[in-house]
Amino acid sequence: MDFLGIADEEFIRQDVPMTKQEIRILSLVKAQIAPDAVIYDIGAGTGSLSIEAARLAPKGEVYAIERSSEGINLIRANAANFAVTNMQVIQAEAPDGLADLPEADAILIGGSGSRLPEILETVTPKLKQTGRLVLNCITVQTLMQCIEFMRQHSDIYIYEAIQVQVTRLQQVGTYDMAKANNPIYIVKRER
Amino acid sequence: MDFLGIADEEFIRQDVPMTKQEIRILSLVKAQIAPDAVIYDIGAGTGSLSIEAARLAPKGEVYAIERSSEGINLIRANAANFAVTNMQVIQAEAPDGLADLPEADAILIGGSGSRLPEILETVTPKLKQTGRLVLNCITVQTLMQCIEFMRQHSDIYIYEAIQVQVTRLQQVGTYDMAKANNPIYIVKRER
Amino acid sequence: MDFLGIADEEFIRQDVPMTKQEIRILSLVKAQIAPDAVIYDIGAGTGSLSIEAARLAPKGEVYAIERSSEGINLIRANAANFAVTNMQVIQAEAPDGLADLPEADAILIGGSGSRLPEILETVTPKLKQTGRLVLNCITVQTLMQCIEFMRQHSDIYIYEAIQVQVTRLQQVGTYDMAKANNPIYIVKRER
Amino acid sequence: MDFLGIADEEFIRQDVPMTKQEIRILSLVKAQIAPDAVIYDIGAGTGSLSIEAARLAPKGEVYAIERSSEGINLIRANAANFAVTNMQVIQAEAPDGLADLPEADAILIGGSGSRLPEILETVTPKLKQTGRLVLNCITVQTLMQCIEFMRQHSDIYIYEAIQVQVTRLQQVGTYDMAKANNPIYIVKRER
Repeated sequence: MDFLGIADEEFIRQDVPMTKQEIRILSLVKAQIAPDAVIYDIGAGTGSLSIEAARLAPKGEVYAIERSSEGINLIRANAANFAVTNMQVIQAEAPDGLADLPEADAILIGGSGSRLPEILETVTPKLKQTGRLVLNCITVQTLMQCIEFMRQHSDIYIYEAIQVQVTRLQQVGTYDMAKANNPIYIVKRER
Repeated sequence: MDFLGIADEEFIRQDVPMTKQEIRILSLVKAQIAPDAVIYDIGAGTGSLSIEAARLAPKGEVYAIERSSEGINLIRANAANFAVTNMQVIQAEAPDGLADLPEADAILIGGSGSRLPEILETVTPKLKQTGRLVLNCITVQTLMQCIEFMRQHSDIYIYEAIQVQVTRLQQVGTYDMAKANNPIYIVKRER
Repeated sequence: MDFLGIADEEFIRQDVPMTKQEIRILSLVKAQIAPDAVIYDIGAGTGSLSIEAARLAPKGEVYAIERSSEGINLIRANAANFAVTNMQVIQAEAPDGLADLPEADAILIGGSGSRLPEILETVTPKLKQTGRLVLNCITVQTLMQCIEFMRQHSDIYIYEAIQVQVTRLQQVGTYDMAKANNPIYIVKRER
Repeated sequence: MDFLGIADEEFIRQDVPMTKQEIRILSLVKAQIAPDAVIYDIGAGTGSLSIEAARLAPKGEVYAIERSSEGINLIRANAANFAVTNMQVIQAEAPDGLADLPEADAILIGGSGSRLPEILETVTPKLKQTGRLVLNCITVQTLMQCIEFMRQHSDIYIYEAIQVQVTRLQQVGTYDMAKANNPIYIVKRER
């Protein structure tokens, strides 16, 4: 378990938004990743989720899908830094790029651009029967699209949804100042 | 009541930290400011609290205490902008500058530097028997100093303490993105 | 201003859900209620918002709309307790009961049952041009319906949306224990 | 990793307060528990943290310290339910009961009663040089005692402190209603 919980500062990120440590931890634990899992990371950004997923599944494979070239370069740089080899980096705007992937044990959706309903339509048949899907949302619209999709497909999706707000106490001289991270919704397929 | 609840953008603030609108509203309502109230605003910063207090107490007087010249200039500029005249601006590092003030109906402490215990010692005898004291804290240490002082002086202070976390939904295209403000503790003398 | 900010304990509430003090304060200040305002309180529950609104508008009139008999009785009991007379209590499930009301300066929607889109359709033409509408939501669906309606009617609605999370520090012996209230979304017509 | 993240409902808890799932996950990941770790769980309550720690350290040993008989019985019942055998249950009010334990790789402090400073004094020399200490606090006083202790022993403790607020979206008919958990401070020895 010393392979989960990498500090945010250890990733190269430039100006690309990154899922913060506590949200990564909760998302990955809720995804219940087995050592041989097949994992998609959709909207992989800096690759921080992908890299931690890859370390949890040393005998598995992570498919990191990201549309921007900047992101792709960061993912590659971070993977090299952490010596992660069980990861394939795919430059595409999901749901493009997903068709040929093997069935998934865990699907992580961090960034969905404006195509979340399509992405959910596409990945649902690719999720194994007991597979997990974990979604991080920062907008109300994305949360709602996800909840509506899961409610419409209640034969496949029983979901849990939480909002997580992390505030860091930043040490400034003799004080600890509260600095809020933005709250994130985490939606997870229960079963 | 259209005189309370000024938008944050209407204040000139440069780089000086400013109490945000919702915290101003809650602090001022909890201070139960009467039209003829005598009010201290300690660590007045940009003067945003002072100005709203002055508008709630048109027949009263606000004493805005602030140590930095930058702050003093901002307070004056903001007071001029809102045509507030029942306010005296005092450049001092509290508790300096408080000795000669008349007894207070309401004391607002937004910024205390590192001298909060001294400030509380100094203002307590200047607070009218039914006067209100409202403190905003962003650090755990300040909160704790305030709570400890009030618990030690439980003959004078029955307090209420809350933490308020406001998140703005920022409209970005077709989305509403959650952007967190830092959480603030508000401690108030109940009676 | 000593007429706003009644403590929660001062209202009779039995088991009816009640908007908590801080949310009442923010909602009423954001509604910018003038002394002669015409106000609707839709889904009035215990009447706590109505009563504070009525005190802010002593020359105005509050219309408290509530469907349940239990609520109606509580509103009447609370109004009597606070000696509020400028309030009419209407037993109806909104948007029923709204047709004959005069144009509104401020519309507060605390409880909407499952009929929020209809309510918004009905009240929009009854809102004065510069009138305020303030909505409190505890569910994602209600928030979303409100945001979608306002985005579709962007000629009438420029909105501000925030989420407010209040945590009370409950005094237990020598400790102050954090006890969270449920977070509430507040959506407000800016203009 | 399917051994971390047990649902709250799977533990027997009666009326004993229990660390909630997300806080357990974050605390245990931040404690970076190796398979052969020696772990103390101080103020073990229902044993939920102990059991997840024991599963993360199948070749290690967990010492669950709890003062109440009710807690001790729950810990035993939960350990039996999850077939956890690498755990010793010690009925004592910490720091009592800690003297004879072997050096620790990870120390979890969930409940400290009123003896936190003593507990910290006692466990500090028992923590291995690279060992982790993770503390969960619900009161400001406990947080402050922990921070002050760590600041006073800055040769041993570099700390990270966060506040985590989890809100569950409870599915009620066609709605998802926000229900807040109480916010928890997590303080962790960085190194």
